[in-house]
Order: sequence, then structure tokens, then C-alpha cells
Amino acid sequence: MTLNTLSTGLDTIWVVLTAAMILLMEGGFALLEAGFVRHKNNVNIIMKVFVDITIGTLCFYLAGFALMYGVDFHGLIGTNGFLISGHLSHLNQSISTDTFWLFQAAFVISVISIVSGAVAERINFRAYILYVVLMTTLIYPIAGHWVWGSGWLGKLGMQDFAGSAVIHALGGFSALAAAMFIGPRIGKFTPKGTSTIALPSNLPLASVGAFLLWFGWFGFNAGSTLNATDGRIGHIAIVTMLSAASGGATALLYTLFRYNRSDAPAVINGSLAGLVGITAGCAYVNDEFSVLIGAVSGLLMITATHWLESRGIDDPVGAFPVHAVSGMWGTLAVGLFASDDGLVTNGSWHLLGIQTLGLLILCVWGFGLTWFGLKLINLWIPVRSTAEEEEIGLDISYHGIIAAYQAHDFLKEEDYFSRKDED
Amino acid sequence: MTLNTLSTGLDTIWVVLTAAMILLMEGGFALLEAGFVRHKNNVNIIMKVFVDITIGTLCFYLAGFALMYGVDFHGLIGTNGFLISGHLSHLNQSISTDTFWLFQAAFVISVISIVSGAVAERINFRAYILYVVLMTTLIYPIAGHWVWGSGWLGKLGMQDFAGSAVIHALGGFSALAAAMFIGPRIGKFTPKGTSTIALPSNLPLASVGAFLLWFGWFGFNAGSTLNATDGRIGHIAIVTMLSAASGGATALLYTLFRYNRSDAPAVINGSLAGLVGITAGCAYVNDEFSVLIGAVSGLLMITATHWLESRGIDDPVGAFPVHAVSGMWGTLAVGLFASDDGLVTNGSWHLLGIQTLGLLILCVWGFGLTWFGLKLINLWIPVRSTAEEEEIGLDISYHGIIAAYQAHDFLKEEDYFSRKDED
Amino acid sequence: MTLNTLSTGLDTIWVVLTAAMILLMEGGFALLEAGFVRHKNNVNIIMKVFVDITIGTLCFYLAGFALMYGVDFHGLIGTNGFLISGHLSHLNQSISTDTFWLFQAAFVISVISIVSGAVAERINFRAYILYVVLMTTLIYPIAGHWVWGSGWLGKLGMQDFAGSAVIHALGGFSALAAAMFIGPRIGKFTPKGTSTIALPSNLPLASVGAFLLWFGWFGFNAGSTLNATDGRIGHIAIVTMLSAASGGATALLYTLFRYNRSDAPAVINGSLAGLVGITAGCAYVNDEFSVLIGAVSGLLMITATHWLESRGIDDPVGAFPVHAVSGMWGTLAVGLFASDDGLVTNGSWHLLGIQTLGLLILCVWGFGLTWFGLKLINLWIPVRSTAEEEEIGLDISYHGIIAAYQAHDFLKEEDYFSRKDED
Repeated sequence: MTLNTLSTGLDTIWVVLTAAMILLMEGGFALLEAGFVRHKNNVNIIMKVFVDITIGTLCFYLAGFALMYGVDFHGLIGTNGFLISGHLSHLNQSISTDTFWLFQAAFVISVISIVSGAVAERINFRAYILYVVLMTTLIYPIAGHWVWGSGWLGKLGMQDFAGSAVIHALGGFSALAAAMFIGPRIGKFTPKGTSTIALPSNLPLASVGAFLLWFGWFGFNAGSTLNATDGRIGHIAIVTMLSAASGGATALLYTLFRYNRSDAPAVINGSLAGLVGITAGCAYVNDEFSVLIGAVSGLLMITATHWLESRGIDDPVGAFPVHAVSGMWGTLAVGLFASDDGLVTNGSWHLLGIQTLGLLILCVWGFGLTWFGLKLINLWIPVRSTAEEEEIGLDISYHGIIAAYQAHDFLKEEDYFSRKDED
Repeated sequence: MTLNTLSTGLDTIWVVLTAAMILLMEGGFALLEAGFVRHKNNVNIIMKVFVDITIGTLCFYLAGFALMYGVDFHGLIGTNGFLISGHLSHLNQSISTDTFWLFQAAFVISVISIVSGAVAERINFRAYILYVVLMTTLIYPIAGHWVWGSGWLGKLGMQDFAGSAVIHALGGFSALAAAMFIGPRIGKFTPKGTSTIALPSNLPLASVGAFLLWFGWFGFNAGSTLNATDGRIGHIAIVTMLSAASGGATALLYTLFRYNRSDAPAVINGSLAGLVGITAGCAYVNDEFSVLIGAVSGLLMITATHWLESRGIDDPVGAFPVHAVSGMWGTLAVGLFASDDGLVTNGSWHLLGIQTLGLLILCVWGFGLTWFGLKLINLWIPVRSTAEEEEIGLDISYHGIIAAYQAHDFLKEEDYFSRKDED
Repeated sequence: MTLNTLSTGLDTIWVVLTAAMILLMEGGFALLEAGFVRHKNNVNIIMKVFVDITIGTLCFYLAGFALMYGVDFHGLIGTNGFLISGHLSHLNQSISTDTFWLFQAAFVISVISIVSGAVAERINFRAYILYVVLMTTLIYPIAGHWVWGSGWLGKLGMQDFAGSAVIHALGGFSALAAAMFIGPRIGKFTPKGTSTIALPSNLPLASVGAFLLWFGWFGFNAGSTLNATDGRIGHIAIVTMLSAASGGATALLYTLFRYNRSDAPAVINGSLAGLVGITAGCAYVNDEFSVLIGAVSGLLMITATHWLESRGIDDPVGAFPVHAVSGMWGTLAVGLFASDDGLVTNGSWHLLGIQTLGLLILCVWGFGLTWFGLKLINLWIPVRSTAEEEEIGLDISYHGIIAAYQAHDFLKEEDYFSRKDED
């Protein structure tokens, strides 16, 4: 046993364990989204998460990883590593390429799961599968290459430790494009354009989801060191916790004093916004700023939710407010508060400028490619569910089943397939 | 890479991962409590857990940690470390102060979550927030200082490895005080004082909670070494498992033979009682005694549940039987069975005496300060919900929403806010 | 601090953390099974999982571990280590015996939980407890000894890294025997023998279960190295992920194109089948073959499900298709694709022959002993629930409670015990 073997072993289990935690976040996404949407679409949204984790993983294995982390071509795209084979020594990690891949696969699945929420309750299931292929093969890997895969934004000096920009802003703007492309759910806005309220099918379920996401986030942020002896791990974990607490507390107190009731969805999403906000800066900002970042994330999330509704955009689980808005704020917050080179901390505009540029590029890329991709898919398969499918509910329409049956009797096959809904 | 760097890295990831596991226990508490209480209070009890984890974390950050682990003042209280700043080298840990803080924050949130169950379904939400501030800033940190923060009880020789006394007995007696102060739920006892039965809203949900708590407990007990090369980790984990199994099995078989049916809430709480019971002694007692400790914990939990009901005290989720009673037993069990200096194992009364004294102090402290604190809060905000709020359900009263909607239609805002309950 | 201390510490936390992940799989089993069965049997199936984890743990502590890992007697059985005491230095692990035991205990509980699903909704609860004692004391430990405890199959060269054969095929054939012995649920097959459809009580709950199982599987497979510096850990984790994704994707696309709807239970079970299939070979096969193994697992699972129904065998949660069939396939796949000595990879029939022999022995052993054991138990306690108990639901029959109450009123004890069901 040498010191080196031990060190590699330590890094390996650190990355494998944190990757497993991130993958458990898929359970979190599934429950959060199922709990927030209406009862008749519970199965569908969970099946979308299964598409993310099954087909998304395979696409990233086939090509996404190569485009993201293969040998760099002019700062634009990776060029080898398809099927995780070929010479990948440029990755220069203490852990094996397999281990590194697993961690990155957990990331790509998170990105696509952000979009799944925004198109909930009205996207054609087959069209969604095609979009997942596009996102996990091309959209995210190429942008990811720019920042994390020795691409041009990374070389410029953009700082995004665990992905406020690459994961959340990109995913959130893709979600916005998809929500706008596909239009609001039938009945969400009155003919006069007034927003109405969709009743969440199950808030305890959504809360389980939030707690699983919170747990996984420690893997997300602290695991991004990819190195168990990185002296920043404890600090990353603590600011992750403080920002989440601050985001949730802000939403809780704000809704309590403003509306005289602590709004449960706001508290859940406020905590998640705090987590998103600190994701870029967890390795760069100090404790006090993490509390501030979380608080602002919580408030921005609430503001953005109202703004979306006023614009007639329907984002059933709040993917844009939570991921895009807090992700943007978190990316800029690095430029403001980074201990070494932030504007507030050190008076230099340099980093903030780069962060702003990178952020813009990523948001436009996510929005544009998603819009264009859905246009293309739409030529083949209508992206939007039919009105009838939507009314019946996507569970029955696409999966022939509803989420929860109280009945105790067995059904003959013919009765099973002819029934529409039990409610 | 030096041996020292490696060792610090190893300790750091051990503590960060186990802290994350403990924080996931908040999901466990939320689900356990939501599953046990009535449907109309599901959202509220989960929101109380969010108060614990968001506001509790911030209070511990601002002041609680300093009072608990700051430089000792006459064995009574810590005096620095507010905002985790200042000279904290006296902590003398191999891990960073940040990492240490995260683990301790996970502990304080657990304590307050014990109380949240006992006051379920009838506490004013704003008053609860104030109580959380009190508990996480003062009550727990000061008592914790006495045992774990170089305070007088620790110096006396009190042994409480992961907190049967400091966490569970203290939390459980605070829960008892709060339950007594606030009185029973309307209708829980008939005018003649006979106890009635509250129907759990969702036992599968409560079971998820129990499994998450069980998982987190490995982090709680084994993580309390704060040191990955501590030779006791395997032993701590195994006795934790054996005691939990023993507590659950005892409750399962006892209710099966006594009442001719295995009572699900008793099995769930029996397993948790086994976990609480071994928390103090997990590093000190051997395997055989851990089985005994678990079995007695299971039986005491059932007995204490009946005793509470006979006394007209309403503790909806069994916080006192599970945490206070098993916590007391677990603390005394160290004095009886500790391999080095227990009464049964070595014939010496010394340790048992110290354990008894420390336990008494902590129980009186928790009960007294909670009672007094609620008295104070009551001067400003009535601690007890109004009868109307309670009848409607705290979900509608404080959060304007219920836990689960079957409806598929969108509601206009005015209809949403005028509706009371859908059942 | 020496290199050796550090290495032992690293191995210890690796095994303790992965063991905790495997134990969380019990939560996964409980929810998966509860979600798949009918509403009136939700509590019962969760209580069966509590029997597994509480009584199963204690039986393995008392005797199972000794028979499996005690000093070998002629390759047939272990002979010491009852209560984890005695000379166990032959285990020759870097970790302590306690740590090793915890990991093995997590395994035995998984085996018995496989059977719990197959007998769902119609087994007598007391008879089930006796069967758990039998399985965790004798059936699994003896077979486990043959392969993993220096027994004759291991000496022959059988390769089963984390248990496709020892855990899943054995558990799955035990499940088949139990399902056949006990017969189908009343009404599952029409008088003419046509299969009918049982409506799942809660698919989101089943999905949470699947995600928890998936998470735990990283502990199961990668943790089976029992050694954090084993260079295969990253590889094991990645093929586990790829096979699961492949199994789920195959089931998703197959049902989508074949039946024009992605079948949610098939997708869930397809992912689990992929996990089962890779469990034997995760340390031996390469990435490409893991994708193939997963895909075939998914298809075999669907085929086997139809086969069971056509044979009039009632396996409510698909324990046989998921665990036995994919487990068999996974065991044989090692003989086909193992990088060093598989038939396809190296042209040698040797390993495939041994795998086939070992598999046959384990399947016959599991099936035979379970059938015989249930025969014996049946002499004392009728293994099958009475028709009345089954109609009412096992929740009320054996636990006097149902899974979820919407009611908000307290019930007098006499009303509580006289009520049968609220639906």
C-alpha cells in the first residue's frame, strides 16, 4: 500500500459516493415535480425523469461525454471519447476516467430534469424523448465543453464551480424556451389572460423531493472538487447549507409577512433557489456572502414566478425562477463576492465582466438551441399534446394508467384498457 | 501529498458525508410526522420542519454555535465563534472548523425537530418560529456546552457519545413541556378524560420517514467519531443496527402476542426507540448489550405511550416515548453496561451516578426552559392555535393550502383563497 | 498516524457508508412493493419489510453469519462466529469483523425482501415471520457459504461479484416457490385461467422505491470490493449505471413501440432488472457488455412476466422476473463476457460451465428449501391467509389499521376496533 494508491482510492470513493448522491436527486426531481403538478399527470412526469436517467445516460455515453470532455478542437468542442474509449489522458484526473464519467453523467441528467418540469402536463411523450437525446448529446455537452472542457469560456477565466451557469442557467433557459414554445396548459390563463392556480397533487411528496435534492446537493457541490484532499470541501458544504437555509427562510418569512401565510411551494422552491444560487460560488465566497446569496435567490425566485405569470408563460413547477434566475444571480455573485477577485471584495470589474459574458452566451445557447430543436422535432412529431390527451391527463394518454388506485378488485384486461380515469 | 493531508481529507469527507446523512433525517422527521398526524395538518408539520432546518441553521450560525463551542467560561457557556469567526483553535479537531460546524448544525436541527412532533396540529405557526429561535440559539447550545463543549458535565465525566441525553432526552423533555403547556388537541380526550384514537393520515409516508431516519442514524452515531480512523466506527455501526432491529422486533412481537396484531406505529417507533437508546452508548457497550438496550427501549416506548395517554397528555407522534424515555434509558445504560466502567460490567457505581446526575440536569433544563420560554412567547403571540384554526386544520389556517388535491381544474385566485378545505 | 491506520480507516468508512446505502434499500423495497400492491395491503407489506430488517438482522446475528462465514467444514457450512464471537481471523479482511458483518447483514435482508414481494397480499403474517427466520438463519447463509464463504462452489471458481446468483437468483427462486406454494390471490385469475390486472395503489410511491434501490445499488456493487483502494470501484459503478439505464430504456422503448404506451411498472422493473443483471459481472465485464446485459435483462423481465401470468402463477410485484430471471442471466453473462475468461471474449467454455452448475444448484436449493420450509410451517400455522382476511385486506386483518385515513375526527377505541375499512 503506497500513499499514492491510498490517495487515488480516497478520491475514487469520494467521487463515486457523491455521484450516487447526485443520481438520487433524480428521485428528488421526480417527486418534486409529481407533487407540484396535477394528479392526472403524476405518472407521466415521473416517466419523463426515467427518460432522463435512462436515455440521457446512454446518449451521454455514446456521444455527449466525447463532445464535452474529448480532446479540445479550437476551444469549441471535444473530439474523442465516444463510448468512453480512446486517449483521454488530457483529462489529467487523479481518478479513473470511468469514475470521472459517472460524476459527469449525473450532471447531464440533472440538466435535462430541469426542463422536464417546465413542460409538464402538456408535452408529447415521444417528442420529449427526442428532446432528451438532443440535450444530452449536443446542447449541454457543447456548452459544457466551453466552460469545463478546456473550451474558450473556461480559458477566458469564467468561474462556475459546480454549475450555476452551466447546469442551472442553461437548463433554466432551455426550460423557458420549451415552456414558451409549447404554450400554457389549457385553462391556466383565462381568456383575459389572468393567471389561475393549479392545485398541487401532493405537497408531502414534493417535500420528500426537496429533501432528496438538498441531500444530493452536498454531493453536487462538494463532490465537484473531484478530489477528497481539496481543502475547500468543508467550506463548500457549509456555504451550501447556509445559502439553502437562507433562501428557504427568506421565502418563508416573506410570504408570512406579505401574505399572512407561509406559502409551502415558495418555501420549498426558496430553499432550492438558495442551493442553485450558491452552486457557482461555493468554492469562492465566504460564509456571510453565502447567506446573502441565498436570501437574494429566495426573493428573486418569488419575483420571477410572478413575472412569468404576468407574461402568460406557464412553468408548472417553477423551473425558470428556481434554476435560471437563481443560476444567473449565482453566476454574477461570483463576480461580485469571490474572495480573490470579486467586485465588492476586491474592486475589480474583470471577473464580473467575464461572468456576465459567459452567462449571456450560455443562456442564449440554451434558449436558442432548445427553440430550434423543438421546431425541428415538431416537423416530425407534434411537440404539444392534443387537447384531448391533455384533458384526459397524460398518465392515461401516454401510459394507460393513473398514479393511484383505491380500488381493491382485479380488472379484466378489456375493462382496464377501456377505462379512462377513476376520479 | 503527505500522510497528513490524506488523513485530514479522509476525516473531512467522512464528516461531510455523515453530516449530509443527518441532514437527510429532516426529510425523515417531516415524513414520519406528516404520516402520523391527521390529513388536515400535513403541510403545516412539514413547514415546521422547514422552519427547523432554515431558521434553526441561521440561529445556530449567528449565536448557537458560539454559546456551545466557543471558548469556555467557567464550564457554563461558550463565549466566541459567533458567525463561525474568531479564534477557535481550542476545538482541536483534525477537520476544519467549517466541517465541524456543519456536523453540529445537523445535530441542533434534529433536537428542534423532536419538539415539532409533540406540538403537532395545534401550535401557532409564528409562535413556533420564535420557539425555534430560542431552542437553537440558547436552550440546546448551553446544555450542549456543558456536556460536549468543555463544560462542567463533560469534565465530571458524563459519557454521551452521540446524544441520547443531550439530543434525545433534552429534546424529548422539551417536547413534553411544550405538549403539556399547549394542552391536548380538541377531541383527543373525551370529557371524561378517555383517550381516543387519531387516525394516521399516511402510514407508508411515515415508514419512508423511519427508513430515512434509520439511514441517517448511521451518520449520527458513527459520524460522531469526527475521525475516520477511529477504530470504533465499525463497532458503532453494528450496535446501532442491532439495537434498532431489537427495538423494532420487540415492539412487533409484543403487540403481536399481546393484542393479536402487529401494530404498525409501534413497530416504527420501536425501531426508532432502539436507535435513540443506543445513541449514548454506541461507542462503549458490546453487541450483546446493544440487543438488550434496544429491546428495553422498544418496551419502554410502548409503556410510556400508554402512560402519557393515561395522564391526559397529548403527544401526537410519540416524541416523549421515543426520544425522552429511550434517551434516558440509553444514558443510564452507559452507566450500567459500558465495557470499561459500567455497574454491571465492572461493579462500579461511579459512572452511573454521573450519568444520572447529568441526565437529571438536562431533563430539568429542557423542560424548564421550554416551559418558561413558551410562557414568554405567549405574552406576545398566543402559542395555542385558535379553536377555529385547529378545526379547519393548520394547513388551511397558516398556509392556505391542503396537502393533496385530486382536482384537475385550475382555480381562479378568488375561489382559491375563499375555499377552506376540499374534503 | 501510519499508512496502515489510514488504509484501514478508509476501508472502514467505505464499507460502513455502502452498508448504510444497502440498508436504505429496505425503504426502497417497502415503497416499491407498497406502491405496486393494492391499497388494502399497503401497511402489511411494509410491516413485512420491517420483519425482514428487524428479525432478519437478529437471526443473522445469532446464527446465519456463523453458518455463512464461520470456519469452513468440508466446503459445506461455516461452524463458528455465532453472536459474532470466536476466532474469525480466517476472514482475512482489512476491515474489522464488525464492519464486515454489517455489510453481510445488509445482504441477507435484501434476499428475504425479494421474497416478501412475491407473497404479497395473501400470506399469513405469523407464518411469514417463521419463514424469515428460516431464510436468514439457514437457507441463504448455507448457500452463501458455498460461493462466498470458502465453500465448494467458490473453490470451483464460480464468479458472483455482488450476488446475481447468491442474492437474486436464490431469492427469486425462493420467491417463485413461495408464490406457487401459496397460490394466486383470489380473483387474480378468472375461472377460465385468464389473468386480470391488479391496479397499483401508488405509482409515485413505487418510483421513490425504485430510486432508493438504484441509489443503494451503488453501495451493493461497488461496496462489495470491501476495499476502498480496489482499482475496480469506478468501473463497477459505471457499469452498474449503464446496465440500469439500458434495462430501463429497453423496457421504455419496447412497451412504447409494442403497446403504444410506455408502461410505468415495466420501466421501473426494467431498470431494476438491469441492476440485477449486472450484479454478478460488474467487476468482470466491460462497458459495452454492461449495456447489452442491461438491455437483455429488461427484455427478459418483460417476457418472464408474461410467462408467469400464462402459467397461472401470481407474483404481485414481479419478484421472479426481476430477481430470478435477470439474476440467472447476469450469472451466465459472466461466463459469456468476463474480460478474462468468458466464452465470447476468450472462447473458453470453462467458466460458463461452472456458472451454469452453480446457478442450477442455487436455484434448486432456494426453490426446494423454501417449498419444504413452507410445508413445515404450514403444519403449525396455515401459510395462506383465510379468504376473509384477504378480502378485508391484510392491513385490517393483521394490523388493525389501513394505510391512509382522510378523516379528521378522533375515534373512540371501540369504534376504531370495530371498523373494518374506510373505503
